Amino acid sequence: MAVKSLVVTGSIGIDTVYTPQGSAEDVLGGSAVYFAFGASRLTQVRLVGAAGDDLSERYVRLLQDAGIDIEGLEIRQGSRTFRWTGRYLDNMNVRETLLLELNVLAERPPSIPDSYRESEYVFLANNDPDVQLEFIGKLSSPEFIVADTMDHWIRDKRESLLKLLSRVDGIILNDSEAKMFSGTGNLIKAAKRITDAGPSFVVIKKGEHGAILVEDDKIVAVPSYPVEDVIDPTGAGDSFAGGFMGYLAARGSTTFEDKAIALTYGTVIASFVIEDFSVNAIKDVDVSRIEERRERLLKIMGFGIIE
Amino acid sequence: MAVKSLVVTGSIGIDTVYTPQGSAEDVLGGSAVYFAFGASRLTQVRLVGAAGDDLSERYVRLLQDAGIDIEGLEIRQGSRTFRWTGRYLDNMNVRETLLLELNVLAERPPSIPDSYRESEYVFLANNDPDVQLEFIGKLSSPEFIVADTMDHWIRDKRESLLKLLSRVDGIILNDSEAKMFSGTGNLIKAAKRITDAGPSFVVIKKGEHGAILVEDDKIVAVPSYPVEDVIDPTGAGDSFAGGFMGYLAARGSTTFEDKAIALTYGTVIASFVIEDFSVNAIKDVDVSRIEERRERLLKIMGFGIIE
Repeated sequence: MAVKSLVVTGSIGIDTVYTPQGSAEDVLGGSAVYFAFGASRLTQVRLVGAAGDDLSERYVRLLQDAGIDIEGLEIRQGSRTFRWTGRYLDNMNVRETLLLELNVLAERPPSIPDSYRESEYVFLANNDPDVQLEFIGKLSSPEFIVADTMDHWIRDKRESLLKLLSRVDGIILNDSEAKMFSGTGNLIKAAKRITDAGPSFVVIKKGEHGAILVEDDKIVAVPSYPVEDVIDPTGAGDSFAGGFMGYLAARGSTTFEDKAIALTYGTVIASFVIEDFSVNAIKDVDVSRIEERRERLLKIMGFGIIE
Repeated sequence: MAVKSLVVTGSIGIDTVYTPQGSAEDVLGGSAVYFAFGASRLTQVRLVGAAGDDLSERYVRLLQDAGIDIEGLEIRQGSRTFRWTGRYLDNMNVRETLLLELNVLAERPPSIPDSYRESEYVFLANNDPDVQLEFIGKLSSPEFIVADTMDHWIRDKRESLLKLLSRVDGIILNDSEAKMFSGTGNLIKAAKRITDAGPSFVVIKKGEHGAILVEDDKIVAVPSYPVEDVIDPTGAGDSFAGGFMGYLAARGSTTFEDKAIALTYGTVIASFVIEDFSVNAIKDVDVSRIEERRERLLKIMGFGIIE
C-alpha cells in the first residue's frame, strides 16, 4: 500500500460567526478549507476552489503553512469570496444563517490544474451535484470518490444527486439529511436506501452523537470525542471528512476496516476544530496530539475496558 | 464474586399503545415490569409494585413464567392498576400521552416483603423521589442503589431529587433530562454536574444514539443495537436498566469495567423489547440470543475491526 494523492473541491469562505461563547468576524472558512485543514494533519492534500480578490494574503499563508497544496486555489480578480454569517443557538446544535453571499460560487467553477488530474482519492465537499459531477469528469482515473451533500440538493436537485450517487464510492452526510433523502426515520434503513442508490458505503454524521459507517451488512459506530467547551461548531463535519479521507489516502487502502479506523481520525480531527473559531485550533495540531486523543477515544469505545 | 440479590420497585401498568406499526390495547407495561423482564434474562429479580384487581391473571403468569419473583407484587382489591395510553409519532422518537390514570399509584406505596429487606442491589424505577427515598429506608443494608428519574421530578421536586441523589450510587436518565437537570446542553458537563450532586456514576440514555456511562473522568459510550423494524419503543429505557443491573447482580461486582460491560447487556436487552408490543419480544429471549446480538454489538463498536 502506497500513499494516494488526495484532492478536495468545495467552497473557500469568509465567515462571521456568533456563538454563545463569543464571535469571530471575517475569518477563514468554507467546506474545502475545513476539509483541507483536517486532511493536512495526516497527509498532503490538493485544494481546488475559487476565491475573490478580497481573500486576505494572511489566509492564503495559513493554508500554505498547514502544508496544503494550493495550486488549485483560484484567486479571481474583481470577484468577491463566498461569505457566510451565522449564529449558533444555545445548545450549539441549531444554527441560523444570517447572511449568505454566494459571490464567486455563483460564477463558473474553478479550473483544475493539470497536475491534479491524476488525483487518486477525491472528496467533493457539499455543492450543486451537477458541479460535483462535472469535477469528476475532469479527473483522468479517480480510484476512490466520496461526496458530501446537504438538504438543499436533496430537495431541489434529486435527479442530479441520484446521478452523482451512481458515480461515487461513498457519501458522507448528516443524520437529518440521510433521513430526508431516504424518507425514513430509521438510520439503518436510511443508510441502506442510500447505498441502494449507488455508493458502496455511507457515513452518517450525528454531531455530538458521533458517526456511523454502513457498508453492505456491516456497521461501525464511533462516538464523538468529548469536548466540554465547544467554542464554534463550524467546520466540524468538513474537517471530520478531511480526517477520514486523509487517513485513507495516507494509508492508501479503503477496506471496511480502514474506513472504520478512518472514522476515529475524523472524529478526533473534528474535536480540535470546534475548540476555537475558524481553523485556529486545528492548524497547528500534530500527529502526537491526534494519537493522544485517539487513544482516549478508543477507551471511550470500550477498548481495554470491555472484554 | 457471588451473585447479588436484586430488587426493583416501580410501576406495574396496563398500557394502550399506538405506533405507526400498529397498536396494542390493555397490555402489560410499567417501569418495574419492563425492568424486571430485562433483568430476568440474566438473573433472579424481585419485584415490588402495586396493581389493582383489574390486573389479569394472565399478566401475573407472564411475570412468573419469566422467572420473576413476585412476592412483592401487591394486588390491591378494589383498586385499579395504573393505566397509560400513548401514541408514537412517525419517527418513534416523540411520543404523546393520550391518557394517564395513576389509580393505585396515587395510593400508599406497596409494602416490601420481609424476605426482600436484605436485598443487595436495588433499582428505583422512575417515581416521586420521596417515594424512592422511603423505599431505600426500608432496606436493611443495600450495597448498590441506582435510580431512574424524569423531567417531571426534575422540575417540580428538585429538593427531594437532590436528597435522593445524595443517597444513590448511580442514576440512569435520558439525555434531555440530564440537560434539564444540569442546565447545560453539553452532555459531558451535564454528567459531571449530576455526579457532583452525589452519585458516583451516571448513565445517560440517548435512544437510537445509544448510551454513555460517566464516572470520575472516565467515559464509555455504547451505540444502540441496530433494529430496522421498531414496533414499539415503550419500555426500552426500563428494560435497558434491567439488563444493566441484571448483569451487575449476576456478576456480583460493580467496577467501572463491570458497568461498561453491563451497558452492552442493557443495550441488547432493549433491542429485543422494541421489536414487539409490551413484553412479547423479550419474554422468551434466552442467553444465547443475547450473546449473539452482543457479539454483533461489539463488532459495531469496532472490536475486531479497529486496531
